Amino acid sequence: MMLEAFFNPKSIAVIGASREPLKVGHRIFRNLVESGFGGRLYPINPNADEILGFKCYGSVRDVPDEIDLAVIVVPARVVPSVVEDCGLKGVKGIIVISAGFGETGKEGAQLEREVVSICRKYGMRMQGPNCLGIINVQNRVNASFAPSMPLPGNIAFVSQSGAIGSAILNWAIRNEIGFTKFISLGNEADLNAADFLEALGEDEETRVIGLYIEGVKDGERFIEVAGKVTRRKPIVAIKAGTTDAGIRAVSSHTGSLAGSDAAFSAAFKKAGIIRVNTLEDLFNLVLAFGSQPIPKGRRVLIVTNGGGPGILAADACEKMGLEIASLEYEIREELRRLMPPHSSLSNPIDVLGDADEGRYRAALEAGLKSSNVDGIIVILTPQAVTPYDRIAEAVSEIGRLSDKPIIASFMGLEDNSAAIKTLKKGRIPNYPFPESAVYALKSMYEYSLILSSPIEERIPHVEVDVERIRSIINNVRLEGRLNLTINEAMEVAKAAGIPMPDAAIVRSKEEAGIIADRIGYPVAMKIVSPDILHKTDIGGVILNVRSRSEAEENYDAL
Amino acid sequence: MMLEAFFNPKSIAVIGASREPLKVGHRIFRNLVESGFGGRLYPINPNADEILGFKCYGSVRDVPDEIDLAVIVVPARVVPSVVEDCGLKGVKGIIVISAGFGETGKEGAQLEREVVSICRKYGMRMQGPNCLGIINVQNRVNASFAPSMPLPGNIAFVSQSGAIGSAILNWAIRNEIGFTKFISLGNEADLNAADFLEALGEDEETRVIGLYIEGVKDGERFIEVAGKVTRRKPIVAIKAGTTDAGIRAVSSHTGSLAGSDAAFSAAFKKAGIIRVNTLEDLFNLVLAFGSQPIPKGRRVLIVTNGGGPGILAADACEKMGLEIASLEYEIREELRRLMPPHSSLSNPIDVLGDADEGRYRAALEAGLKSSNVDGIIVILTPQAVTPYDRIAEAVSEIGRLSDKPIIASFMGLEDNSAAIKTLKKGRIPNYPFPESAVYALKSMYEYSLILSSPIEERIPHVEVDVERIRSIINNVRLEGRLNLTINEAMEVAKAAGIPMPDAAIVRSKEEAGIIADRIGYPVAMKIVSPDILHKTDIGGVILNVRSRSEAEENYDAL
Repeated sequence: MMLEAFFNPKSIAVIGASREPLKVGHRIFRNLVESGFGGRLYPINPNADEILGFKCYGSVRDVPDEIDLAVIVVPARVVPSVVEDCGLKGVKGIIVISAGFGETGKEGAQLEREVVSICRKYGMRMQGPNCLGIINVQNRVNASFAPSMPLPGNIAFVSQSGAIGSAILNWAIRNEIGFTKFISLGNEADLNAADFLEALGEDEETRVIGLYIEGVKDGERFIEVAGKVTRRKPIVAIKAGTTDAGIRAVSSHTGSLAGSDAAFSAAFKKAGIIRVNTLEDLFNLVLAFGSQPIPKGRRVLIVTNGGGPGILAADACEKMGLEIASLEYEIREELRRLMPPHSSLSNPIDVLGDADEGRYRAALEAGLKSSNVDGIIVILTPQAVTPYDRIAEAVSEIGRLSDKPIIASFMGLEDNSAAIKTLKKGRIPNYPFPESAVYALKSMYEYSLILSSPIEERIPHVEVDVERIRSIINNVRLEGRLNLTINEAMEVAKAAGIPMPDAAIVRSKEEAGIIADRIGYPVAMKIVSPDILHKTDIGGVILNVRSRSEAEENYDAL
Repeated sequence: MMLEAFFNPKSIAVIGASREPLKVGHRIFRNLVESGFGGRLYPINPNADEILGFKCYGSVRDVPDEIDLAVIVVPARVVPSVVEDCGLKGVKGIIVISAGFGETGKEGAQLEREVVSICRKYGMRMQGPNCLGIINVQNRVNASFAPSMPLPGNIAFVSQSGAIGSAILNWAIRNEIGFTKFISLGNEADLNAADFLEALGEDEETRVIGLYIEGVKDGERFIEVAGKVTRRKPIVAIKAGTTDAGIRAVSSHTGSLAGSDAAFSAAFKKAGIIRVNTLEDLFNLVLAFGSQPIPKGRRVLIVTNGGGPGILAADACEKMGLEIASLEYEIREELRRLMPPHSSLSNPIDVLGDADEGRYRAALEAGLKSSNVDGIIVILTPQAVTPYDRIAEAVSEIGRLSDKPIIASFMGLEDNSAAIKTLKKGRIPNYPFPESAVYALKSMYEYSLILSSPIEERIPHVEVDVERIRSIINNVRLEGRLNLTINEAMEVAKAAGIPMPDAAIVRSKEEAGIIADRIGYPVAMKIVSPDILHKTDIGGVILNVRSRSEAEENYDAL
């Protein structure tokens, strides 16, 4: 895959590896050792002979072997010199874990630029600085702080925040959620979100990419790359810093600009990225995308052993634009023979409080058989005689054979109960609340629409004539002005691809008539004067002028 | 308290108590025995001598003792006769667990009415039928299916759905959330939501009431009672059946009408009920209300050891209408001395990834001291060296002394980790995602506004002239019609307090002029004819008629 040195290194050096158990340089080296990495490992530390049984070198240049990847955990001011060493050694990729760069102010930013230019000189790529590192679960590279790795799975995560990154990893490990890769972006001095998205787009094992971002370095490229990736697999993203309060917090966090929320909305839409508003939703969605097929339509079957949760799910479906499916008459009649007389066979199907796995199985199979159903929500509430485990088995078994998504909401059970573990093993995403299950299915449906809409149609491409804008602004500056004239402002807008009505400033009755003729009717007329701010207040605006004579009359009136 | 027989019975009979471990009649009796109830228990079953060591009686009338509460678990058709027995015995309250009443159709509804009339005859009150029962944690009455009781606490729950009820109980038990009472309403043939809300309003130990409802029996009384209760403690409610799909599901679930969503919104608003849209939000809010003081304003301090989650929290605050507080200059300077140089002391306060309990303590204490702060969100992400447990201790300790709400978001930790347990013991509500913590605080602020707004101002009271409406409708029925005339419809609307323009049907040019004069100008004129549905299509509507002569002309035109 792309970025091979980062994802599939054959040999890794840890520069700043330490023997002190509490130091980050120790943790990262230990993680690499304990994660089961099959390649060669080299701790670099001039003050140690060996670390965890591995021979230590004073400099990466002393290692008698090629180095694909170097993980750097030394104080910021020392980073340039060790990066120089890496370059001389012919290292392909470096990960700078160390903080103390662009995020701390001017001096740090200078140091960061210095490191980037060393990388450029040697053709090395860099992840970070100021990041948690990288994990590739498949080939067991854990070049990060994380104490353990998630299980293997289909989800990749890319995070601009280290703290969110560690929360994501903890969540995955604690909930036994399978991952492919985890990337902490840090300051993105060289490699940025687009680079990693591009690589993950080509990664066969990754079915869905989760993304936490605060800002984007090169918007055009980000949209282009993400737009290609989302043709192949979904990207689910949370954008932090969407409000004034959040933007202020971003700027005091990383010093970067968060960008306007509307711009991000448009960019995400164009790129086909599914946007979520909370971290919880981000987790909920990658779970579903990572394990279930994409629905072909919006028609949902709800199967439940309790009326209340079924109603909540039906409400959620309608609110979110999904449709409650109607089963075909024959399928419903067949089901009727398998259900007790009081069961409600309209959708939601209520298999009743004393339902066993047989009733759940019958209802789910009806949903799979029906050509009116695109996806299934299966709800279980813990009632006196509910055989959770056997029902979980049945759902998982049916899920394995299904080409329609099945999303579960087994409510009120412990995470480590046998039923929940069975669902996990069966790759049935489970949500403790029915509304979250519906939200997951709705987002999968949304992705089916993204897949089927030509990328060009999402948002028209806008040509921006940057040169033209620059020359207008420069001219204003040269003249020492602080404002644009109306004509200049309209020219800038036009050059930026913003549609503007034809307009001109006229200075006589005759000119008004001629220009109005040229523009075509109806036209609007306004007073232009620096002294008049609120034109309508003084009758300074006349709309719907329909002829040359009207235009001439109105000029006089104005 | 009110409904004493239900909440604090001295003696309980279980009619239909069984020796078969899987039967509901056994479970309920066993729950009463094992919950540690201090009063006297009597199993009633003509076919058993003793159950779980308690002497069994053939009928409640054979019990040589007074009975406060009878829990009835016999088949529906037998219920009237045992209720009659209860009446003769002088039982004060009955809980009918059995299903097979109004929820099953006409016959069941007839049976239900029969049972109610027996209750009325003897002055007994009834909970149910078709319910899970009741739990009073304080005096250890577990007259329900639930296998065990929640811990003692401050939250009461009232549920119209049995399945949701059991999910609520499981949630409480699994998460060690403390409850006061739990009530499953069932069909509400006699006692309804308002009755139990009224009783819980007077219950000193209950600080917050959670409510799941699908429909309300007596809307006026519900609003009146709930309006009084919410002056004393918050009611957090979820209304199921708010969409067409949900309403259809409600009607196939209980046969009852769900009522319009707009009507419920208005009713909840008038009653000062806090409405949530998901079950998860319901749980999240009762947790906060049950343990933290109500904030006096909307200004929030965010304390975090990671930038990303702080930004998400700041975004959430602004989106939800909370304000990011500014600390006073002196407090900030004092804090600066206690924090490392890179900490961000603007709000969110970033105590940095290596923060210990000392930094958290300093930041929280600054928040308590500041008169610009009304509530605190404290976020922790699991980083390499984070001493979770000691930080949880510090937060709990400060929480004990605080009169401002403190809400935690310790992210990515296991539910049974020491830190999470410490927060629970310290009564600090904890949410794994920062947005949920903000939502809780925002809802508490919302309640502070409810408390400070006079109830009369919430929504003006509308006088409905029910008699007038009834007589109009009766008249239409008598005439065998299925539609109201325009005049009748307007009269009904007026009688219901809906403002209507003055209007009349006229049958001549002269009449049109006279009536238009009487109404006052401008008036609108329309054709009234059963043959014409879309009046505007054929020019059958004329607006802005300004004088008698215009009215006369237009009459001719129409």
